[in-house]
Amino acid sequence: MNKASDFKAWMQAHLDRVEDALSQWVDAQAPAELGQAMRYAVLDGGKRLRPLLVLAAAEAVGAPTDNQAALRAACALELIHAYSLVHDDMPCMDNDVLRRGKPTVHVQFGQAQALLAGDALQALAFEFLTPPITEVPAAVQAACVGLLARASGYFGMAGGQAIDLASVGHRLDEAQLRQMHRLKTGALLLCGVQMGATCGPAQSHETSAALSRFGEVLGLAFQVVDDILDVTTDSATLGKTAGKDAAADKPTYVALMGLAPAQRLADQLAQEAEQALLDSGLPAERLMPLRALATMVVQRTH
Amino acid sequence: MNKASDFKAWMQAHLDRVEDALSQWVDAQAPAELGQAMRYAVLDGGKRLRPLLVLAAAEAVGAPTDNQAALRAACALELIHAYSLVHDDMPCMDNDVLRRGKPTVHVQFGQAQALLAGDALQALAFEFLTPPITEVPAAVQAACVGLLARASGYFGMAGGQAIDLASVGHRLDEAQLRQMHRLKTGALLLCGVQMGATCGPAQSHETSAALSRFGEVLGLAFQVVDDILDVTTDSATLGKTAGKDAAADKPTYVALMGLAPAQRLADQLAQEAEQALLDSGLPAERLMPLRALATMVVQRTH
Repeated sequence: MNKASDFKAWMQAHLDRVEDALSQWVDAQAPAELGQAMRYAVLDGGKRLRPLLVLAAAEAVGAPTDNQAALRAACALELIHAYSLVHDDMPCMDNDVLRRGKPTVHVQFGQAQALLAGDALQALAFEFLTPPITEVPAAVQAACVGLLARASGYFGMAGGQAIDLASVGHRLDEAQLRQMHRLKTGALLLCGVQMGATCGPAQSHETSAALSRFGEVLGLAFQVVDDILDVTTDSATLGKTAGKDAAADKPTYVALMGLAPAQRLADQLAQEAEQALLDSGLPAERLMPLRALATMVVQRTH
Repeated sequence: MNKASDFKAWMQAHLDRVEDALSQWVDAQAPAELGQAMRYAVLDGGKRLRPLLVLAAAEAVGAPTDNQAALRAACALELIHAYSLVHDDMPCMDNDVLRRGKPTVHVQFGQAQALLAGDALQALAFEFLTPPITEVPAAVQAACVGLLARASGYFGMAGGQAIDLASVGHRLDEAQLRQMHRLKTGALLLCGVQMGATCGPAQSHETSAALSRFGEVLGLAFQVVDDILDVTTDSATLGKTAGKDAAADKPTYVALMGLAPAQRLADQLAQEAEQALLDSGLPAERLMPLRALATMVVQRTH
């Protein structure tokens, strides 16, 4: 076995856990097709980067593989991501008709149902985090809710989306662009690392800070690569409409700095992420999944 | 002093606490006008029935008047209510332009910002419930989040809205109508009573069950009275468009059973609410605010 095959096995096992849990916990029986719209938005698509990050971070700090709190946090984070895509795709936002190679939720179920499905997915994320306290300790529940709510909210993802809305057609400088992406995309990725670490044994301040730094850098790298892929990859490979940001005159790293410098920035961020993992002081074998996920983020082709 | 003036003083003091907290806790500085859209949706309007219910239930079970957990739960519940109004009013839902006598959020700020403001208000509700655990115990935080998430979600408010969407132009029977309203409106009112009770000392099973029954009956009464007011009151008094349900051929208690029987049902529910309070076994003086709020719900004119 080499490291690549170790990670492949780790990823497949954890993807299966996440898919099984999502399929079991997002109930099709909810009233009037709402459950079906929600399942359509969540199941059978997506790379599941965010839930994998939660699980990898939990294992990095020494949580057992079958930790229920981490699985719940992983799935909750994916629901927040899924709801944001449903709402983002709506006609009053990005007006996108294709997502993960399928018609978007509002195309399939109508705008009103898409709006409700997104709202209900957000609520369901917080249901996932609050099972009976015999299953997850109240302190872990409260900590994860606090992290996820703040990462999703007006000083997190939603705030980043508001900056994005206001910035179309404006020239942002790199600091402004970083701030937008730190909130819009980065906050949830950072939250994933932090929730995962919260589900395991308590860590030193140095370890927690290093993991948070890893989450921040990874979030930024993710967005830089996203911007690169938007101009270098076709819609079929991406599973969503390519070239959309450029067509909408949205600010991107590529638009700001050019393609080659954006690629160099992505490489530099990958090195910073690696350094943060080293700084955590955690055992190398437990860091393997986090390290491999960071590599995957930077080297992905869709 | 008579009971009416006692309640008037109680209500004014608690309304002031809620308004102060909302104004302080919904931050105008959030990026790109998002905070302003959220404040526009939440502040300076509304009867604050839901937060008052939380505070009244907390005091009924013996929580001190200045209980921070109850104030946070009260404001969180109001944010959920406010976000649901913002999204309900959007063109793809009810397409309403007037709310509490002001232009609706999407008229004032645009649809995209209204969508985001609603999303961010939901997240902020869960931020309110998760302060540092030195302020509210983790067990209370987890319990309130669990109650609020379930009351808001696909087997709560959002599920009721989905039934509402699917039911336009269909003739529901009374059981179906009750189910819709139990979820759409009732779930949040019941949740208010339950969160309030969670913030005080632990209660017997009988007391908790009686308070939940009070919350359920009150929720139903609220909706019956809403349907009555929709046909008996003008838009200026309501602060929103009157006659809208009838015009949209939406199922209502008045459409189903006629105006006079709907009014008799409201009276009967008021008696059931009173009985539930008696069954709680809680001291009469502590029940005063809950009792007066129930009377207010049934006798309100807007």
